[in-house]
Amino acid sequence: MAIDTKNPMHEPRYCGIPTFMRTPHATDLNHLDIALVGVPYDGAVEARSGARQGPRQIRDMSSMMRSIHHVTRINPYELCRVADVGDVHFSQIFDVAASHADIAGFYKRLHHCGIVPLSAGGDHSITLPIMRAVAADRPVGLVHIDAHTDCCDEEMNSKYSHGTPFRRAVEEGLLDPKRAIQIGIRGAANSDECWEFGPQHGIRIVYIEEFNRLGVDRVIDEVRHVVGEGPTYLSFDIDSIDPSFAPGTGTPEIGGLTSSEAQGLIRGLRGLNLVGADVVEVSPPFDSSGITALIAATIMYEILCILAEKIAGRS
Amino acid sequence: MAIDTKNPMHEPRYCGIPTFMRTPHATDLNHLDIALVGVPYDGAVEARSGARQGPRQIRDMSSMMRSIHHVTRINPYELCRVADVGDVHFSQIFDVAASHADIAGFYKRLHHCGIVPLSAGGDHSITLPIMRAVAADRPVGLVHIDAHTDCCDEEMNSKYSHGTPFRRAVEEGLLDPKRAIQIGIRGAANSDECWEFGPQHGIRIVYIEEFNRLGVDRVIDEVRHVVGEGPTYLSFDIDSIDPSFAPGTGTPEIGGLTSSEAQGLIRGLRGLNLVGADVVEVSPPFDSSGITALIAATIMYEILCILAEKIAGRS
Amino acid sequence: MAIDTKNPMHEPRYCGIPTFMRTPHATDLNHLDIALVGVPYDGAVEARSGARQGPRQIRDMSSMMRSIHHVTRINPYELCRVADVGDVHFSQIFDVAASHADIAGFYKRLHHCGIVPLSAGGDHSITLPIMRAVAADRPVGLVHIDAHTDCCDEEMNSKYSHGTPFRRAVEEGLLDPKRAIQIGIRGAANSDECWEFGPQHGIRIVYIEEFNRLGVDRVIDEVRHVVGEGPTYLSFDIDSIDPSFAPGTGTPEIGGLTSSEAQGLIRGLRGLNLVGADVVEVSPPFDSSGITALIAATIMYEILCILAEKIAGRS
Amino acid sequence: MAIDTKNPMHEPRYCGIPTFMRTPHATDLNHLDIALVGVPYDGAVEARSGARQGPRQIRDMSSMMRSIHHVTRINPYELCRVADVGDVHFSQIFDVAASHADIAGFYKRLHHCGIVPLSAGGDHSITLPIMRAVAADRPVGLVHIDAHTDCCDEEMNSKYSHGTPFRRAVEEGLLDPKRAIQIGIRGAANSDECWEFGPQHGIRIVYIEEFNRLGVDRVIDEVRHVVGEGPTYLSFDIDSIDPSFAPGTGTPEIGGLTSSEAQGLIRGLRGLNLVGADVVEVSPPFDSSGITALIAATIMYEILCILAEKIAGRS
Amino acid sequence: MAIDTKNPMHEPRYCGIPTFMRTPHATDLNHLDIALVGVPYDGAVEARSGARQGPRQIRDMSSMMRSIHHVTRINPYELCRVADVGDVHFSQIFDVAASHADIAGFYKRLHHCGIVPLSAGGDHSITLPIMRAVAADRPVGLVHIDAHTDCCDEEMNSKYSHGTPFRRAVEEGLLDPKRAIQIGIRGAANSDECWEFGPQHGIRIVYIEEFNRLGVDRVIDEVRHVVGEGPTYLSFDIDSIDPSFAPGTGTPEIGGLTSSEAQGLIRGLRGLNLVGADVVEVSPPFDSSGITALIAATIMYEILCILAEKIAGRS
Amino acid sequence: MAIDTKNPMHEPRYCGIPTFMRTPHATDLNHLDIALVGVPYDGAVEARSGARQGPRQIRDMSSMMRSIHHVTRINPYELCRVADVGDVHFSQIFDVAASHADIAGFYKRLHHCGIVPLSAGGDHSITLPIMRAVAADRPVGLVHIDAHTDCCDEEMNSKYSHGTPFRRAVEEGLLDPKRAIQIGIRGAANSDECWEFGPQHGIRIVYIEEFNRLGVDRVIDEVRHVVGEGPTYLSFDIDSIDPSFAPGTGTPEIGGLTSSEAQGLIRGLRGLNLVGADVVEVSPPFDSSGITALIAATIMYEILCILAEKIAGRS
Repeated sequence: MAIDTKNPMHEPRYCGIPTFMRTPHATDLNHLDIALVGVPYDGAVEARSGARQGPRQIRDMSSMMRSIHHVTRINPYELCRVADVGDVHFSQIFDVAASHADIAGFYKRLHHCGIVPLSAGGDHSITLPIMRAVAADRPVGLVHIDAHTDCCDEEMNSKYSHGTPFRRAVEEGLLDPKRAIQIGIRGAANSDECWEFGPQHGIRIVYIEEFNRLGVDRVIDEVRHVVGEGPTYLSFDIDSIDPSFAPGTGTPEIGGLTSSEAQGLIRGLRGLNLVGADVVEVSPPFDSSGITALIAATIMYEILCILAEKIAGRS
Repeated sequence: MAIDTKNPMHEPRYCGIPTFMRTPHATDLNHLDIALVGVPYDGAVEARSGARQGPRQIRDMSSMMRSIHHVTRINPYELCRVADVGDVHFSQIFDVAASHADIAGFYKRLHHCGIVPLSAGGDHSITLPIMRAVAADRPVGLVHIDAHTDCCDEEMNSKYSHGTPFRRAVEEGLLDPKRAIQIGIRGAANSDECWEFGPQHGIRIVYIEEFNRLGVDRVIDEVRHVVGEGPTYLSFDIDSIDPSFAPGTGTPEIGGLTSSEAQGLIRGLRGLNLVGADVVEVSPPFDSSGITALIAATIMYEILCILAEKIAGRS
Repeated sequence: MAIDTKNPMHEPRYCGIPTFMRTPHATDLNHLDIALVGVPYDGAVEARSGARQGPRQIRDMSSMMRSIHHVTRINPYELCRVADVGDVHFSQIFDVAASHADIAGFYKRLHHCGIVPLSAGGDHSITLPIMRAVAADRPVGLVHIDAHTDCCDEEMNSKYSHGTPFRRAVEEGLLDPKRAIQIGIRGAANSDECWEFGPQHGIRIVYIEEFNRLGVDRVIDEVRHVVGEGPTYLSFDIDSIDPSFAPGTGTPEIGGLTSSEAQGLIRGLRGLNLVGADVVEVSPPFDSSGITALIAATIMYEILCILAEKIAGRS
Repeated sequence: MAIDTKNPMHEPRYCGIPTFMRTPHATDLNHLDIALVGVPYDGAVEARSGARQGPRQIRDMSSMMRSIHHVTRINPYELCRVADVGDVHFSQIFDVAASHADIAGFYKRLHHCGIVPLSAGGDHSITLPIMRAVAADRPVGLVHIDAHTDCCDEEMNSKYSHGTPFRRAVEEGLLDPKRAIQIGIRGAANSDECWEFGPQHGIRIVYIEEFNRLGVDRVIDEVRHVVGEGPTYLSFDIDSIDPSFAPGTGTPEIGGLTSSEAQGLIRGLRGLNLVGADVVEVSPPFDSSGITALIAATIMYEILCILAEKIAGRS
Repeated sequence: MAIDTKNPMHEPRYCGIPTFMRTPHATDLNHLDIALVGVPYDGAVEARSGARQGPRQIRDMSSMMRSIHHVTRINPYELCRVADVGDVHFSQIFDVAASHADIAGFYKRLHHCGIVPLSAGGDHSITLPIMRAVAADRPVGLVHIDAHTDCCDEEMNSKYSHGTPFRRAVEEGLLDPKRAIQIGIRGAANSDECWEFGPQHGIRIVYIEEFNRLGVDRVIDEVRHVVGEGPTYLSFDIDSIDPSFAPGTGTPEIGGLTSSEAQGLIRGLRGLNLVGADVVEVSPPFDSSGITALIAATIMYEILCILAEKIAGRS
Repeated sequence: MAIDTKNPMHEPRYCGIPTFMRTPHATDLNHLDIALVGVPYDGAVEARSGARQGPRQIRDMSSMMRSIHHVTRINPYELCRVADVGDVHFSQIFDVAASHADIAGFYKRLHHCGIVPLSAGGDHSITLPIMRAVAADRPVGLVHIDAHTDCCDEEMNSKYSHGTPFRRAVEEGLLDPKRAIQIGIRGAANSDECWEFGPQHGIRIVYIEEFNRLGVDRVIDEVRHVVGEGPTYLSFDIDSIDPSFAPGTGTPEIGGLTSSEAQGLIRGLRGLNLVGADVVEVSPPFDSSGITALIAATIMYEILCILAEKIAGRS
């Protein structure tokens, strides 16, 4: 005897075991287009930790999401096969390199099956091993929305902290810096190098002050100009958004994006050739009212809509 | 021997039994112009509950309010007789229809005495029984500020949830859809019907994207064009405002109004022929710092100023 | 290609889609001994609501649980087939009777398959429809741990609130009052009837003052004396525990049980012929640090151990 | 036309303008036996402040209280005329002496009318001006439950801080130290004087260690032995209770009373000749879950029961 | 043997005893250019208190700051000698005048040594005694960013509350009202006088509505026009910023500045002849996520950059 | 010119840069008896993290402490030279072995100077490198108060997590298991090995159930019997205490010690030959009201008293 099957999307929003967006929990990768993935890892954080708890809280708040987008009227679930494939399984969590290997291994299986991953972190160091999977064949472009460039050479004498992934990605040939753009950058630093590495290699930086001058639409033009039509990865650090909207993160910087601007940016990426995307650095212990996770869930839904539209070949 | 009478408005803001705006608690309805009313009901909520506790927390934070408006220099207490008439008394709380009847009965007495009600919810389902009282004689116009249209046909197989009141109001002849405007609408849905019912019947919807393009002043022009000079009800759902400003609500949607825009909208309604107004969906359990209730109290004060000015015949 | 299967019990406690105790999510009822069930319903609460969110938060905190009990060395997963069967599906949530029918229907299917349910509420009204399933054949005994007797005749003119289930259960012939005991009762009331109904029908009440005098061991003796060896239901209201331990509930009463005493009580029930059990009234919005849900999860684990031992025939 | 009058005690606990225990708000002092009073003052606090907000939060949580005591079956509202007379009105709040004069003036009016005051603070300095009213005619005895003796000579070069009231009361002839007992004392100090003043003048101190050795019943014997049958004041500092139960206070000290022990102590005072009582030092900003205010409200209810019984001449 | 000296700026942000910005704690005033000072005083607050805890929380969050400004590339620590000189020592805290004398005495020593103070409050009353030190020789100009004018004549019958400092400063000849500008003013009042005193004496008020119309750049022009090149004090009340960004304050007013606008204003003051500055009214008990203290720390860092640049003679 | 020196112990408890207990911050190790040390490290935590922020929050709350113990009348500052030596400096934080080496190095310098360290963690893995310093010469005894034995062989395939330090200490010859006792052990486990290693090597385990049966005094007898008069280390994991008292920790287990029992245990260790002590696993993000840090600070003060008494040679 089986339990009645009902569409979880139509149940009250507080019901049910929480998967991302209430999608089915899939363990078979054979019939999926887009995988929603959790990466509960924060072992490479120099400031306040807690992002290890991000995937669970984002899953919980993502039940607030529904199916049809109010502007584009895209229903991603009608366009693509979408599922929650659970969290990356970690064999080690106290050694950054080993944990990164666990992550890369998980994404390589997804990549092998032709699945586009949309991930919830976890700290920003996870983007490097994800890129090792999705950019294994050739360098990709990058749309990177963040308060920080994450292009340091080292943090606390380590090459693999959450402040270094994009420098490593350039060095490892995963990221084509000429096709990379960073948006929302701000906040003091102890050294210029975090701001200089990118421009020296061709990365376009849109500091928050320039963002405010240009406005969302012209920044979108700039993004499209920079990344073009090639394969591109989208990485969204929740600390790009102002702490008033997103207090639940480890390294908040005041003077950031509004959530509305962030939504505008994502909608402006319709049609881009995205090979994967992530939303990172949500730290639930600092998000007592859950509004940070709500933004993360909504940004994931916005990304899901443009991914699904592109994959379904309609854009 | 009586306790000394002092003007509670001049006492420290943490003193005294909290009535709305520190107005007197009235039980006699014979000499009132405007009644401040609490409707502690959230029995028709499909998402997170807690709005039953809204009136108390709004009363508490409303002690932060003072008398003279800094822009218009209106002092509503010099223009009208204003009092807190307490909360609606409920004989039943576990049956939506019975609870709605309790609400309608309470407002009919106010209406009978010629009192204009300014209410604090409670969930948005309460607006229907309020309209059954204040619009009993003829359909009224509507200024509806909200993230959601609340025009679903059913939620969880019920016709009377907090997602359906304005559809019911049209069907019951309480609301003239041609004189109705909804502002701030956004967020995904499981069906198009919530967005389609209104336009099919003549309701003007200003989605948040259009709001952002037009700006407050032009939206006010649109409001005045739509509702004209006839009797009009004003319903303000706190989830119209962005969750960074108003986390304390059951169904938050990112990308909303700022509190400043909301104040601008209310001020733009000076002179409208308002027959009543409400501020709903404040859910204190999700408002740990009280800033949502502070907005609700301030919006009530802004509405009180324009109500008083109109009633006093000065506009 | 499938995702690697790992034992979720051995993963870090913040990993994975949260099922109760990290057990598998089952939709097939054919091979189960014990079902862990969520009942996200709080539509019959007269005080502060929020228990609708209980099952999710208890699931989240239940990842803190592990397999082997440190006192009894019972490993319930080696003794029985245990799974999370998800939440009761609701077709209606705004009508108490209809919601209760949804609950009863769900449990009847479990009962039909010979599965013993261990549930997480939800408000205490849910115990009545659960008993309509598990006690359908004959009245059962009851071990009821709570601050309140929940034996009112009516609350807010309703027969089916969270303050009335056990009176209804007696009236409906589901509960044998001679084999019922209530432990931890305290707090003022507006009428004696809530305390008088039970004794008039033979229910044994152990007020908290008597509990403190007797101590855990002698109360256990009393329980065993009252319920004997017949089929018995165990209902644990989290507000039995003192608010310092369990702030996250709607109707807290000071002067309650310690969590240690509660654990002692459950362990004392080894060998009882339990036909089902529940832990109710966890209200996450009032449980900011999660310690209430932690107690609920641990009490569920303690109950699971004694259920599994009994079912496996070892006691 | 008047609003329907209903018994607020029978309404849902989140309804209505919150008075203490939902009693009527009285401004006429002529027909009262017991006055519930708020003293929103914390201008004499050396540690964390916030007790100025105590009366409001205690009023809010006191709606959880009901009428009949579950042990004694006392219903204080049937025995005496009880009302909330509001808060003390302050003409000055930045000068301790002036504020204390405002307090004393308020209580003198109550005292003149033969009303017994039961107060909610506010910081502990308020007990001195209250005693100046209720003990104006002759020194009274004292039951003082607290973590601190509040018998310093000076704090921060002031004679009138919240650490000095009982020394002043002895010096001013308001308090008979031979009929005074302090219970629950603990925590380090910078000088012995706070512990030495009392014994030098005959005050009996029961440190928490002695309390734990003796147990509640023998401490009650000691209280009765010390204060006898003369007029006695009862002062309950919420920091007597352990911070796990009562985190919302300015100077918490670990290792304190349980709320159950506190209830036991109050119940043990039945029949004492109490001329007034207070519950002080509840600081809502540190009481995020409201459990401290719940204890304060319950302790006030417990005191109300014994006051009413005594005044009604039954004990 | 000494502990290894390391640059605290390069340690993880949660390490070390928290001084402001991780600067050295100085007790010798002979070799300093800029002193970071804490003034833990909130004895003159009429609304919610807690600002006494401000300096500690701001120090804690200020560890998030680093050295090089991302826009101006100013590194204040290379330009000037900056240190945390600790908190003002108070001999009295229960008498406003005595506490203000303690503050003035502390700042006179700094002033005597030619040190420019950058302070963290404390309530806004502290600015008056600070000005008594830094403006002892001649009246100074003022850039005052706040929701309130703080120009009342009295609050609660006191001349020296946190609502009166700038009126007193004009009266005492410390402040030249012709060279004073107030930005961000808003919120209702009980009397016009708070808005009228300033204009009557030549103070320029930029209400928030005018601020929103003009924009940051034109307001900066206005500031420079008003204060000119003479000595000027900068006072930043955190409640100038909207409560969504800065909930942790005692008298929040909705509809305020964004943190980005506040940063823009400070950056626009480069080159001004500042004799001191403060950031006041941060109340940690209402700042559960720490975002208010983060803004305060960042605003202090922004001010530090322009102070250091000016002092170093580069602008 | 120097800032006036005042005794920080006599200032209001919210004043000053927070060192442990308001002791002086020492960088010179030549004239110290007892060093208070912070170890802000949580890189070896398998559950919820956040203990890296422990030292700062404990420092902040430790200002609540004063000098003279209310039971023993010990004033540790009159008996010994006590200072806060700051936090361990970390050159690496992403490699457990390297971080442990940083810790060991710091403590070796203290040990070399004959200073007894009293530390605030940090996660429990820090006790191993501390013991590598203080037990470098010979194995020491251990009083270990904790919910967990921390004697696992591996966690997440690592030998050096916070669940393994005491097994490693035995293996490395730092700990004499025959002179070790563990108190308060409870909570389920996935393997028996964590409970079996100790007894197999002679460690005495007092499970919480035995603790509750024996009571504090008899457990103290057992401790003294086990550790005798040899050099002994004291390690206090805050999760030994029940989560109602100490919610701010990563791996809470219900049914734990009360804070009063913990104080009793420490006081019972007077005269022991302690070579060092620590209080670990305070995780501020889960301690919203600060009561966990308050317990940690008080336990440190209790330990400081017995350390000072012993070192001063008086016991």
